[in-house]
Amino acid sequence: MEKVFVFGHKNPDTDSITAAISYAYLKEQLGMNVEAVRLGTVTGETAYALEHFGFEVPRLIEKAATEVGRVILVDHNEKQQSVDDIEDVQIIEVIDHHRIANFETSDPLYYRAEPVGCTATIVKKLYKENGIEIPKNIAGLMLSAIISDSLLFQSPTFTEEDRLAADELALICETDPLVYGLEMLKAGTDLSGKSLED
Amino acid sequence: MEKVFVFGHKNPDTDSITAAISYAYLKEQLGMNVEAVRLGTVTGETAYALEHFGFEVPRLIEKAATEVGRVILVDHNEKQQSVDDIEDVQIIEVIDHHRIANFETSDPLYYRAEPVGCTATIVKKLYKENGIEIPKNIAGLMLSAIISDSLLFQSPTFTEEDRLAADELALICETDPLVYGLEMLKAGTDLSGKSLED
Ligand SMILES: [Mn+2]
Ligand SMILES: [Mn+2]
Ligand SMILES: [Mn+2]
Ligand SMILES: [Mn+2]
Repeated sequence: MEKVFVFGHKNPDTDSITAAISYAYLKEQLGMNVEAVRLGTVTGETAYALEHFGFEVPRLIEKAATEVGRVILVDHNEKQQSVDDIEDVQIIEVIDHHRIANFETSDPLYYRAEPVGCTATIVKKLYKENGIEIPKNIAGLMLSAIISDSLLFQSPTFTEEDRLAADELALICETDPLVYGLEMLKAGTDLSGKSLED
Repeated sequence: MEKVFVFGHKNPDTDSITAAISYAYLKEQLGMNVEAVRLGTVTGETAYALEHFGFEVPRLIEKAATEVGRVILVDHNEKQQSVDDIEDVQIIEVIDHHRIANFETSDPLYYRAEPVGCTATIVKKLYKENGIEIPKNIAGLMLSAIISDSLLFQSPTFTEEDRLAADELALICETDPLVYGLEMLKAGTDLSGKSLED
């Protein structure tokens, strides 16, 4: 089976990077040949989360069509936020929590958007719907994304569904969201622009 | 709670009419104030299905914004297939199985598209995900939609998921899909352009 790329938006935040990793893991369990990749430099916050839960930084790509014919978008849908050659590949799935704009396909696809505060909250549901257990370290990434997108549960976009997801993920990864979350957000401030890969 | 309209595309087929009815019923069970409406004349096929399972033809609307502020689209997403004043209302949900084009929102929404042969196949999943039992007559409408969109299970867009859904719905509504389906399709041929409301 030909490989499929999974990626979030340019100038990736923690949700874009970790949703790519956690959704790619789910699709692998379901038998798809996928690779989580990224469209830009990770922030210090994201680097902290990846290292804390034992993940490598995903590979940076500049083009998709040179390597794959099909892609899955997470945490975005607008063309201008996506890979430069998005018009040259088939988008087979989108998992997102933003408004829909500048998005068009020529074929039917799986599109899952929900008006919640974080892509991770939707990905968590998809693990459940597909009967796949969330590994401890993947739960840690998803929790990191909810903390990041909600600014430690403060943002007005943070919903009751996000709260329930965060509570459950915190149990799975045995992490105190407030203690860990403050450290993670602090890492973003400290290392801003000086991420691991630079 | 202000009412929300649920409707399929203009020149409605059986899927557009029955998905509006069956999804509206689900949303009602979940506590939303909704009304299934239609954007055009129903075909003889659709009239046959509605009458067979004991439903009225939904009310025809020409505009939405004169009555509601928010709408749910089923079986379509493209603006030109939707209500004339679609730009004047908020689309809060879309349940569809077509490509995405000429579609844009200013706010996040619930968007559920899957690459299957019929909207009813997705609506059936949503009943399950929300823990709502499918009433016998609603199952009959959903089965009618799958029969219609797949031309009695023959169309190349008909997937394994549609087949499983049709089998389960046939059991719930205690209907032989082949016998009933032929009658329904025949009603479409006989009454084409001479539907009940004309
Ligand atoms: Mn983001
Ligand atoms: Mn996000
Ligand atoms: Mn249709
Ligand atoms: Mn349809």
